[in-house]
Amino acid sequence: MSGSTFGRYFTITTWGESHGKALGVVVDGCPAGIPLCEEDIQKFLDRRKPGQSRFSTPRKEEDLVEILSGVFEGRTTGAPISMMVHNKTQRSADYSEIASYYRPGHADYTFDLKYGFRDYRGGGRSSARETIGRVAAGAIAVKLLSELGISFLTYVRSIGPVEIDDAAFDPAVISENPLNMPDAAAAERAAAYLDECREASDSSGGMVECRVQHMIAGLGDPVFEKLSANLAKAIFSIGAVKSFEIGDGITVSTLKGSQNNDPFYSDDVGHIQKKTNHSGGTLGGISDGSDLLLRVGFKPTPSIFAPQQTVNQSGENIEVQIKGRHDPVIVPRAAVVVEAMAALTITDALFANMHAQMSSLKKFYTAK
Amino acid sequence: MSGSTFGRYFTITTWGESHGKALGVVVDGCPAGIPLCEEDIQKFLDRRKPGQSRFSTPRKEEDLVEILSGVFEGRTTGAPISMMVHNKTQRSADYSEIASYYRPGHADYTFDLKYGFRDYRGGGRSSARETIGRVAAGAIAVKLLSELGISFLTYVRSIGPVEIDDAAFDPAVISENPLNMPDAAAAERAAAYLDECREASDSSGGMVECRVQHMIAGLGDPVFEKLSANLAKAIFSIGAVKSFEIGDGITVSTLKGSQNNDPFYSDDVGHIQKKTNHSGGTLGGISDGSDLLLRVGFKPTPSIFAPQQTVNQSGENIEVQIKGRHDPVIVPRAAVVVEAMAALTITDALFANMHAQMSSLKKFYTAK
Amino acid sequence: MSGSTFGRYFTITTWGESHGKALGVVVDGCPAGIPLCEEDIQKFLDRRKPGQSRFSTPRKEEDLVEILSGVFEGRTTGAPISMMVHNKTQRSADYSEIASYYRPGHADYTFDLKYGFRDYRGGGRSSARETIGRVAAGAIAVKLLSELGISFLTYVRSIGPVEIDDAAFDPAVISENPLNMPDAAAAERAAAYLDECREASDSSGGMVECRVQHMIAGLGDPVFEKLSANLAKAIFSIGAVKSFEIGDGITVSTLKGSQNNDPFYSDDVGHIQKKTNHSGGTLGGISDGSDLLLRVGFKPTPSIFAPQQTVNQSGENIEVQIKGRHDPVIVPRAAVVVEAMAALTITDALFANMHAQMSSLKKFYTAK
Amino acid sequence: MSGSTFGRYFTITTWGESHGKALGVVVDGCPAGIPLCEEDIQKFLDRRKPGQSRFSTPRKEEDLVEILSGVFEGRTTGAPISMMVHNKTQRSADYSEIASYYRPGHADYTFDLKYGFRDYRGGGRSSARETIGRVAAGAIAVKLLSELGISFLTYVRSIGPVEIDDAAFDPAVISENPLNMPDAAAAERAAAYLDECREASDSSGGMVECRVQHMIAGLGDPVFEKLSANLAKAIFSIGAVKSFEIGDGITVSTLKGSQNNDPFYSDDVGHIQKKTNHSGGTLGGISDGSDLLLRVGFKPTPSIFAPQQTVNQSGENIEVQIKGRHDPVIVPRAAVVVEAMAALTITDALFANMHAQMSSLKKFYTAK
Repeated sequence: MSGSTFGRYFTITTWGESHGKALGVVVDGCPAGIPLCEEDIQKFLDRRKPGQSRFSTPRKEEDLVEILSGVFEGRTTGAPISMMVHNKTQRSADYSEIASYYRPGHADYTFDLKYGFRDYRGGGRSSARETIGRVAAGAIAVKLLSELGISFLTYVRSIGPVEIDDAAFDPAVISENPLNMPDAAAAERAAAYLDECREASDSSGGMVECRVQHMIAGLGDPVFEKLSANLAKAIFSIGAVKSFEIGDGITVSTLKGSQNNDPFYSDDVGHIQKKTNHSGGTLGGISDGSDLLLRVGFKPTPSIFAPQQTVNQSGENIEVQIKGRHDPVIVPRAAVVVEAMAALTITDALFANMHAQMSSLKKFYTAK
Repeated sequence: MSGSTFGRYFTITTWGESHGKALGVVVDGCPAGIPLCEEDIQKFLDRRKPGQSRFSTPRKEEDLVEILSGVFEGRTTGAPISMMVHNKTQRSADYSEIASYYRPGHADYTFDLKYGFRDYRGGGRSSARETIGRVAAGAIAVKLLSELGISFLTYVRSIGPVEIDDAAFDPAVISENPLNMPDAAAAERAAAYLDECREASDSSGGMVECRVQHMIAGLGDPVFEKLSANLAKAIFSIGAVKSFEIGDGITVSTLKGSQNNDPFYSDDVGHIQKKTNHSGGTLGGISDGSDLLLRVGFKPTPSIFAPQQTVNQSGENIEVQIKGRHDPVIVPRAAVVVEAMAALTITDALFANMHAQMSSLKKFYTAK
Repeated sequence: MSGSTFGRYFTITTWGESHGKALGVVVDGCPAGIPLCEEDIQKFLDRRKPGQSRFSTPRKEEDLVEILSGVFEGRTTGAPISMMVHNKTQRSADYSEIASYYRPGHADYTFDLKYGFRDYRGGGRSSARETIGRVAAGAIAVKLLSELGISFLTYVRSIGPVEIDDAAFDPAVISENPLNMPDAAAAERAAAYLDECREASDSSGGMVECRVQHMIAGLGDPVFEKLSANLAKAIFSIGAVKSFEIGDGITVSTLKGSQNNDPFYSDDVGHIQKKTNHSGGTLGGISDGSDLLLRVGFKPTPSIFAPQQTVNQSGENIEVQIKGRHDPVIVPRAAVVVEAMAALTITDALFANMHAQMSSLKKFYTAK
Repeated sequence: MSGSTFGRYFTITTWGESHGKALGVVVDGCPAGIPLCEEDIQKFLDRRKPGQSRFSTPRKEEDLVEILSGVFEGRTTGAPISMMVHNKTQRSADYSEIASYYRPGHADYTFDLKYGFRDYRGGGRSSARETIGRVAAGAIAVKLLSELGISFLTYVRSIGPVEIDDAAFDPAVISENPLNMPDAAAAERAAAYLDECREASDSSGGMVECRVQHMIAGLGDPVFEKLSANLAKAIFSIGAVKSFEIGDGITVSTLKGSQNNDPFYSDDVGHIQKKTNHSGGTLGGISDGSDLLLRVGFKPTPSIFAPQQTVNQSGENIEVQIKGRHDPVIVPRAAVVVEAMAALTITDALFANMHAQMSSLKKFYTAK
């Protein structure tokens, strides 16, 4: 399972299971001198915290973060930053039953196949609680990027069939509704739809969009380390993601070159700009200075309360009704995870880009 | 530009520009003992070769591969396999003009930003010719996987607005039409559409699907090295890709859990199966033994002959008409690139999985 | 400081400073199914614990390890294993003075240069306490290797000018003297020498030897991932190491080929053996089945109580007398660190070797 | 055998066997804008070329390098630089016999064990000809570092028992004798010694020293990516290396702290310096600005013409007399390989260091 580390230069290593003692992350390669305190991290974790509305699990997850290393006198030191969140309830009583069968849509079956047995408590390592480490690390990346002027706007584009109206797009609304949608009317319709789902013991999928503003151009390396490719991996490493698009995404496969190409122009102050941004901020996989635009499709939460067909570990066909407390939709809570993964990827590309030119290398080391 | 290596265990390093002396790839980590000759590679390269129909560039690219190392007496030795294709025409006359401006939709602008100057001959490193190395390496991966029973079915799903009819799906048809579509009628309609595009000096996007059959279960590591995440990166590292989906993909964001979950059942011989395959062959990012199903959206070829607005290197707004010989669509030739990248990713996951269980480790080393 | 992760397949990421809240390690890529408990780790940590004799610092370091993840029902699950040791005393009073100057032989100066400031409390990240994470992780690697029959014999070869007599070599003696020497008489002489050093407010260097027995042949990859090369890196990553040798080591540079080559022979049961083991267990960087023999030279502890010349942060030349509690020799405690790093390296090579041959790959996946 | 890539940022991938079609290297991550031509590389390859004196093999190896990619209009472009040397004689006649048995001191046995068979022509991948790729890549690294003022002085310290006299050290002499020793008298004694070895059908070991001058301070990352640790790996990845030391090396294990610590002082212009350089240029694994001093022990060439005992592939004990043309000593030719590996390692550390401080990151991206 050597797959818990992400990044080449700014690396994070997450650990922990949903019902283990704790979950955490080690952030390595963070530059020295960034002001950092637990509150910087906590506000990100709070964005993914469940129990904030009737659409997320009523489980109580305090998720208070503790910084254990890498910060001294209020600033990062360059040493690895270890962060931890204790699991308040390690009780696995609700989960003892699911040890005996494979939940459809979950990783129970593949974990058993791969490892010979599994930590069946709430999904163990495949639980969405694993994203706590990503979000804590992402908070640092967002802070680092903000010092360079880069900012993030992340929101829910759709829940089930309910999509926002781009004409009604209002960023201020995002944090004002529990579904993190930038369109108050759509949020209400989505809420109604989710109520339906819940009554039917069912769940819903949805889409998240992430817009990265004031991007630095030139990030991403050609061929395999394209910024777009690393974003694709970063986002697809989030559980439940089934589609990923950049810019106009899936639509462009149906278009013509004359519709999709973004013409360049030189603006009033002589800066080169694109008239449109169909490309979503990358050309040849390298950031072009326009906003990055990512769109992520999440499948419906697999934990539903309706009866389902499956097989138990003795190989018998059975019908099950999963108990417990589960979100009818995870998409609103997933938005901050998308933002975290995007920020981590961009930070990595930022470092990788510093030695692209001999002239800047020379300037860096002779000015020093 | 340290981004020319892909893979952790079975690694490939590609090199070469569209108009340099040669292009090539070094495949490292290939197991010893696989029968391999140049013909094994050549037939894959021939699938990406242009000039095979009126829908691809009439440029003559012989692309004859030479194996320079790593094979002895007809078998791989475990040493790196270096493969090379000479560029027959290094003449950059046709391209001298584009040195002076930024082609819309191309990487000219971002390369200049990143590196301070660029190899402007035909796109240099960002040219689609770079995929020669990927395809040559992918041919080895496909061969390796075939020895374990895994096979690939890769085809064009759509070109512009013309999509195949799943009811008419016929794998035998794929290699019988120049567009690599598994539906003869759709291929004809697509051909007509491409003729239109060409007449209008325009180009078209499209979608490729790749189905990996007889998959081994258990491949992919949880969290960041999910098989799905690495496939996303692999595919998004191909130029012109703007969307990536697994299984039912983008659709599932609009669905309910009861519609999307794949029920398990135990078949007649006691094997656990899924009744449906909405998941596209992964659960928790780990292969579940069902077919892998990948869908890839390509943008229209940016090189169009219609006049376009852009900026030259002096920062002046100009109108350009790109000359040269370009594909009105690259999607049919891109199919084998998708297959190559998928095969490379799966091979890597195959190796990574061998030490997942102590019991198999013990068996491996004590039986040896 | 992205340098806290070691290993390609079996990876460890250490974190923590000498006087931070805690220190720890995340072990990723550990196979599922290994019985593991905190006692397995603790007995290794106890071997590096100070305060066990008059030759190590009288500081009280409890160093009780806690396993936070990756173990379920007494066995490893394949998930990352997070382990932590709390720092009992975070008091940095004794260290406040050293914040103002650069201790000769320490990393104070280079950390300040690199990061702009440093965590001056007891060396921060450059403290020998950092090895706690390595040793905890190494305990798992040693356990894993022991399941395959591989065992370690690690001991102090010399302290200052006092070296063991190979004729008197007795493994049973190693744990019976506080200096971990396999020669009781040498240990007594070394103790007398250390008493001298201590009285002179001075410190001593020394050498550690590690013998890996019942090695599996074939480990290590040619060229850059030679087992010998990775061992060299692993060992040289330990603070205070200034020399590394394999087999007859430095001596062989003075010899002739006829003296140094190890003749092969076929033994009674037809196994190929080497008559001698000058090579120290590798040929071409790959393990040859003989014992691995590593020799590691440590510099004298730089913290001495005698007056020293240095510069303070204002750039003034000053004389200092370092206070605090320090080991007159760290070599005996470093033995377990050498063993840990060797075990981690071998485990990594063990995994990397599993896909060296197509035939074994096929057997692995078809038998499964 | 995924072990042919070295470096994290500035990576090289070597390929080729001693008697294959060609050998080569792909250098990835080289900054754009460095003036580079084949002559820059050739002069390094010529330093490792055999047949230049009676002490190296009379084999004719032209080893003319060809740059295939990554250079445009005389400057590096940031794209991977592929370089190749054709093997003039692929004839393996001389080597057909050694296919049947295991040469003592060679990797024949371990390659057979690991891969099931081997390319027996002249050692295949384990041949010293593999270093051609390293040296070609190293030439680029040395050139890059020279633009920052860093220079290398690499020479043979000893051959067999004949060591240079430090009092007679004269850098100008190095290139004036075929043994690359900086002491003309020692070089003559060494030549006499080698003549003896050759008459006795024997071979000799020796030591290489590499001094890196005008080093930049702050290179190397704490813990596992110490500059010293990566140098140890780099050097130990060279075939035949059996010992590695930094600074005073093996000697310091016998010394006291008061003898080994290098006192700091502030010089006339207020620069902090070390009075001595026992440490060999690193503190805590990070470069301290003093000269780096590396010492490398090579075993005697294993190919000797005297009769030796070994086992053939049928498992029979036999006596062999190896034919062919072999160096009685490889140490003089190995000097440039040591220099190449050191330069590659330092370049990698140079890039890794650029994002150590947030303030320099900010300066880099806002000034741009």
